[in-house]
Amino acid sequence: MKKILAELLTIGDEILYGQIVDTNAQWMSIELDKIGIKVVRKTTVGDVESEILTAFEEAEKRADVILITGGLGPTSDDLTKPCLAKYFNCNLAINAEALAEVTEFFKSRGRELTELNRQQAALPTACQKITNVLGTAPGMWFDKGDKVFMSMPGVPHEMKKIMTDHVIPRLGKKFELPVIHHKVIRTIGIGESMLAEKIAAWENALPSHIKLAYLPSLGEVKLRLTGFGSSLAQLESETTELVEKLKALVSPYIYGYGETPIEVVVGETLRSRKLTLSIAESCTGGYLSHLITSVPGSSEYFLGTMIPYAYEIKMRQLGVKPETLEKFGAVSEPTIIEMANIVRAKFSTDIGVATSGIAGPGGATPDKPVGTVWIAYSDKYQTVTKKLQLTKDRMLNIRLASIAVLNIIRQSLPG
Amino acid sequence: MKKILAELLTIGDEILYGQIVDTNAQWMSIELDKIGIKVVRKTTVGDVESEILTAFEEAEKRADVILITGGLGPTSDDLTKPCLAKYFNCNLAINAEALAEVTEFFKSRGRELTELNRQQAALPTACQKITNVLGTAPGMWFDKGDKVFMSMPGVPHEMKKIMTDHVIPRLGKKFELPVIHHKVIRTIGIGESMLAEKIAAWENALPSHIKLAYLPSLGEVKLRLTGFGSSLAQLESETTELVEKLKALVSPYIYGYGETPIEVVVGETLRSRKLTLSIAESCTGGYLSHLITSVPGSSEYFLGTMIPYAYEIKMRQLGVKPETLEKFGAVSEPTIIEMANIVRAKFSTDIGVATSGIAGPGGATPDKPVGTVWIAYSDKYQTVTKKLQLTKDRMLNIRLASIAVLNIIRQSLPG
Repeated sequence: MKKILAELLTIGDEILYGQIVDTNAQWMSIELDKIGIKVVRKTTVGDVESEILTAFEEAEKRADVILITGGLGPTSDDLTKPCLAKYFNCNLAINAEALAEVTEFFKSRGRELTELNRQQAALPTACQKITNVLGTAPGMWFDKGDKVFMSMPGVPHEMKKIMTDHVIPRLGKKFELPVIHHKVIRTIGIGESMLAEKIAAWENALPSHIKLAYLPSLGEVKLRLTGFGSSLAQLESETTELVEKLKALVSPYIYGYGETPIEVVVGETLRSRKLTLSIAESCTGGYLSHLITSVPGSSEYFLGTMIPYAYEIKMRQLGVKPETLEKFGAVSEPTIIEMANIVRAKFSTDIGVATSGIAGPGGATPDKPVGTVWIAYSDKYQTVTKKLQLTKDRMLNIRLASIAVLNIIRQSLPG
Repeated sequence: MKKILAELLTIGDEILYGQIVDTNAQWMSIELDKIGIKVVRKTTVGDVESEILTAFEEAEKRADVILITGGLGPTSDDLTKPCLAKYFNCNLAINAEALAEVTEFFKSRGRELTELNRQQAALPTACQKITNVLGTAPGMWFDKGDKVFMSMPGVPHEMKKIMTDHVIPRLGKKFELPVIHHKVIRTIGIGESMLAEKIAAWENALPSHIKLAYLPSLGEVKLRLTGFGSSLAQLESETTELVEKLKALVSPYIYGYGETPIEVVVGETLRSRKLTLSIAESCTGGYLSHLITSVPGSSEYFLGTMIPYAYEIKMRQLGVKPETLEKFGAVSEPTIIEMANIVRAKFSTDIGVATSGIAGPGGATPDKPVGTVWIAYSDKYQTVTKKLQLTKDRMLNIRLASIAVLNIIRQSLPG
């Protein structure tokens, strides 16, 4: 089977001059890898016609699939469409369907369609228009013999939606791709080195056609098994067996599989057990609630939050006892216990959680350095607390503490 | 003056397959831009000799300065050094000074020098060794006629140190570079197309040595003016004059300049005017508070938040009147006014803001589709409300609504 090769081509001065980090290319690489397409080059060029046309030519020589992002804005410095029209020897013309879509897009937002917006519907006639439900610049698919050029907007969420809904399925139809099976096992509460030590024997015994990758991210480590073969059913059954053996080694740290993050796993558990949650978060400043409420349908189990950022709000609004605050300080076990218990009682929920700490850079004391964070979990059976010693970085502390609370909920929920 | 052109070449499978986001290229682009060197292309290739050699050749045709990162590790899959030796027709040989440095590096960390480590000191004889004080792989500078190839490790802090201490000064000596002046103007509350229309005449009248770029991001559009010339003072005065003319056209939308985001600008204003803020956020679910508290020192002006996500929390905890909720619903102007006023009073702050809306995907009604959001601002002089009609995307709605609140604070603060 011929290996299908891809080149990722990013167009835009804003990437070239460093105004924006190109995170699209990474996401696309991972998605293509999943279906067995190998990225052999990434190229970024500016908004210059000759550069863009040369890049098209060079990419066509190297790759079967050329995925292009950027340069589709409504202003005159965006050149991707005229360059595609030139490269494919055709005109730009208003696409009736695209015009209807962009008109509807503006109408639904109560905004008027300007002439510039209308030009978003002008496409090279050689392309197949791909609907962009999240924006105004449509995707464009060009077949060229056994090769494909696909142009997409550079706005990440628009590009991802178009890739997932249209490009990946179409690539699967156009090309004969190998059988690949991925299984991602998500762990939390254990570092990469410690995890590697615990599973070393299992890892060394993996068959040669199944590869393991460690994918560490904020507060968690994902393990990805990738099997290559000719039968999907066989790969699935081999992987299932391997995961069972893995669970025997590190079960307490495994919280889920695949693409489902911890906030969704915790939310699903709360929903299925008909439990409700409230939050008193101080140092995490809203980020914990944001993680919880980023999940659609979270209003079924999440009732509300108090963010008592100031000392007096902790007392007067939340109701932490002044004696506790005075004697132990806001960042202490007695305070965090009160915070979790009080918010649970006030908001009449099954579970209450709380955070209080020194996110930094200010606010540290000799015995409470930046990165000191107390978290607590409370239900009618128990109150669980944990002291974290995190980093010197404010944003990292906010994120790591929030994820630690999600993990303490997972670990402490009544069985 | 000849424009000096650069190409950034990243070498490594780990970048190509999406295991790492290449943030080096962005940083290097910005640093080169500051000294008037124009990046014309960014290229990433894998650890494959033929690919690397082709990339060298192509880059030499296009650019005067070729900055290479990655592929310098001690293992056999790292090919940058042998490829450079081949390209420059020379051998790899132990560089005595580099060997002394790498020996000292390991000694100072109490570690023994292995044979693999020793190979870090083997360099193409055609290069000038550049000391890497933060790691074991030296930088390599190659003059080739009036062009330069510079190879650096991919580890970001090592690359940055080498660039700052050695590469940038050397480039300034080797090439005659222009004087460049950048000015970024940040706007909010107006779309790119509408902004472009409003400033079209101003844009068309820009002198040819001053370029304009539109840099749209979530909820805002940045305008960047870049002036090229021989006198910095003159460029600065020209830019200042242009910005004054721009302000006459779109002043209500300009919230700041340079790298400072809206949450910092709003925070600075609150701090300098000694005003305090509280929040009642429903549909934004904590994200608005997170933006505010992501700013170090925000505890000086931000006192706290109530997130009354559930209907009964809006009544019982925040204190919105049941009649209001029953008659108008949670997503309504009367409710949002009460929310902002109540939180301001309860938390005893100068300003109270509130959000309530349908983030989606669930919760819509015929007259309140997904993306309907009410926001409000309250101080002792006035209450300001705004109805937003946003998108179908939950996360986007949460983010856009939060940014809209920051903008309504900016617009409504007592003068």
